[in-house]
Amino acid sequence: MSLIVKKFGGSSVSSPEKILNVVKRVIADKKAEDKIVIVVSAMGKTTDRLISLASAISGCPYQYKREMDMLLASGEQVSIALLAMAFQNYGVPAISLTGRLAGIRTDDKHTKGTIVSIDTKRILSELAQNKIVVVAGFQGSDNQDEPVTLGRGGSDTSAVALAGALKADCCEIYTDVKGIYTADPHLVVNATKMSDITYEEMLEMSRLGACVMQTRSVEVGQKLGIPIHVRSTFVDDEGTVIQTDSQRQEGLIRGVSYLDKITQIAICNEDIEGLYQELRENLIALDIEYDFFRHAHVYDNNKIGDALILAVEQGDFYAVQPLIRKIMQKYIAVDISIKEGMAKISVISNKINGDKAIYDKFCQALGKANIDMLMMNRHALSISCLLENKDLSRAVQVIHDEFFPARV
Amino acid sequence: MSLIVKKFGGSSVSSPEKILNVVKRVIADKKAEDKIVIVVSAMGKTTDRLISLASAISGCPYQYKREMDMLLASGEQVSIALLAMAFQNYGVPAISLTGRLAGIRTDDKHTKGTIVSIDTKRILSELAQNKIVVVAGFQGSDNQDEPVTLGRGGSDTSAVALAGALKADCCEIYTDVKGIYTADPHLVVNATKMSDITYEEMLEMSRLGACVMQTRSVEVGQKLGIPIHVRSTFVDDEGTVIQTDSQRQEGLIRGVSYLDKITQIAICNEDIEGLYQELRENLIALDIEYDFFRHAHVYDNNKIGDALILAVEQGDFYAVQPLIRKIMQKYIAVDISIKEGMAKISVISNKINGDKAIYDKFCQALGKANIDMLMMNRHALSISCLLENKDLSRAVQVIHDEFFPARV
Repeated sequence: MSLIVKKFGGSSVSSPEKILNVVKRVIADKKAEDKIVIVVSAMGKTTDRLISLASAISGCPYQYKREMDMLLASGEQVSIALLAMAFQNYGVPAISLTGRLAGIRTDDKHTKGTIVSIDTKRILSELAQNKIVVVAGFQGSDNQDEPVTLGRGGSDTSAVALAGALKADCCEIYTDVKGIYTADPHLVVNATKMSDITYEEMLEMSRLGACVMQTRSVEVGQKLGIPIHVRSTFVDDEGTVIQTDSQRQEGLIRGVSYLDKITQIAICNEDIEGLYQELRENLIALDIEYDFFRHAHVYDNNKIGDALILAVEQGDFYAVQPLIRKIMQKYIAVDISIKEGMAKISVISNKINGDKAIYDKFCQALGKANIDMLMMNRHALSISCLLENKDLSRAVQVIHDEFFPARV
Repeated sequence: MSLIVKKFGGSSVSSPEKILNVVKRVIADKKAEDKIVIVVSAMGKTTDRLISLASAISGCPYQYKREMDMLLASGEQVSIALLAMAFQNYGVPAISLTGRLAGIRTDDKHTKGTIVSIDTKRILSELAQNKIVVVAGFQGSDNQDEPVTLGRGGSDTSAVALAGALKADCCEIYTDVKGIYTADPHLVVNATKMSDITYEEMLEMSRLGACVMQTRSVEVGQKLGIPIHVRSTFVDDEGTVIQTDSQRQEGLIRGVSYLDKITQIAICNEDIEGLYQELRENLIALDIEYDFFRHAHVYDNNKIGDALILAVEQGDFYAVQPLIRKIMQKYIAVDISIKEGMAKISVISNKINGDKAIYDKFCQALGKANIDMLMMNRHALSISCLLENKDLSRAVQVIHDEFFPARV
């Protein structure tokens, strides 16, 4: 007997026909003694449709976080009910459970909740009655029984956390790609699917742009030691297993990631040290991811000056703006320049730190292709380069060709 | 200070614009010290859309009653969240509560639940914090915390039951008509709006075809002694108050109702007495409303015979069919004739039983207009006549003119 948690995203259940296909596949794959828990997102574009309704009520609906959770949690309630009906209509006993009914307890951070515990009693009792249990992803309830959602992509986290709490044999994430690739297959035609990858590598790939899995779900999988099998909803191939161990050689490059909407901020001022501390503390307090943060000498208007440079994702820039305004008011003679349209390309491995050979190979490949390397960064599991957006797709191909030469 | 429960149906909140209008009106009407509870249905055609999704999954989705409730209960969750957001966006504190969070406890009869109790603790605590409380109509949860819906139109019942539990001063039902009329204003142009009507009269009008209010909600109002004010969402006029007492003269006609899809069933057999008992018991067991049930002598094919005659609503006829089949198998020489396309017109008053003058006036008016009166029935609060559907609209006008002569 296996206990398997299977998660299907919104695009896998975007219509009644697709729901029937998912249900038929689950029934076909199920061995008689298997216990199955399905985690499902809202149908297709439901969440976007609900957000646009809310936006017609208020220009800034996310200020009403508790009501956004009440609104958004309705989406999965539709998909779980339809899936449970479809199973029963094929003669397979099934029951739908909202996050709350499934025992998923969160903190009270509306729209960005974190799962704090799962009471598996109800799910286990339904499984013992040989039912397939269909659980609403992306949601739970806090200790006041209020609805709380987990943030975009939260269904992945629901699935992995449930698999951990149920001591499942595996957590399968069904999606519209076939697994984790060495690079974005839309950009690199010769990218290849990996059979497996470690949690650490996957987290680094996600952080640096690979968006197949929600980062938090991989962290939860790592913490609970649950193997995560990422595979296609529409094709019956094996996908990629995210797990603890890998027998691979250390330092071997695993993949190429990129982020294509990066904004660079340069702040020139005499009191660089004070500014550095203040900026850093504020960025951490605001929970904003930043990179390439350093003290540099810049040559501008025929004079050399001191500057702080950092890069943030374009989507986070609106959150940085008030901080910049504050700095401009506080520091005299501060000079700030903003550069949009930047990108970041990275290579990821299980052990890269200090491996000068990889670093050199990375830089030489980009240099040979005449791609401007604006800034470089080395982390424990990755090397990144800031570049112009216009050079990005060529850079991804060049780096992939360098580290994954086509087999002859 | 007044505590007022206001219920808005699906057509009143079918778009973000309409929701904003409802919210603006509630704010404009609210006195500073008023406590307001809003009960709201799903937006516009949401419930129909959800049912059609379920119908694409299963030809007969209502066999999965528990899953239908999980599905349908999602509809009000959207409307309550949007209303609560809209109030807050106008600077008025508000909170949305599902039926469960509002403490509405039902029995476990999925899709046709009955409210068994309401724990008002949460609502009272939110009202004490000066919030407008927006409650999902049509739903509650059973003692296992499972979602249960109250059946079509159940939001009226939610509102009246909440008003009772909260000891509200009034329950206002906002709808797309201006109140209760002496006859269907679509059929009778000179029908007039009543300022008030008793619960008994309203129940009789509903039973006989006036569909402004869900019957059960009026029964609940009667039981709890809550005045129900039926009024327009779109116009600021006073509507009709449904209440216990009326200072009106006994026997005065209050209104004209009709049902336009009636099927007449005639069953000829020698053993009329046995058939009568069996049919009656079965109809009661199946919870089918019937009328004009009697033993008659029929003249057919040149011979006089005994027959049982009754009339049911066309929508209930599918439920009667198996019963008819059973009778045909059991009784020898049974002869059954079905006549569709019938209608029923009724006049309603607070005391009509035995008032021969009203009965005579009713018959004479129809007779003068050359309308065939196929069968007549007298109840405590009404007189009804079975007639051909083709005569119905003329009959309604004639009877209304007779009992509500235009004032000169």
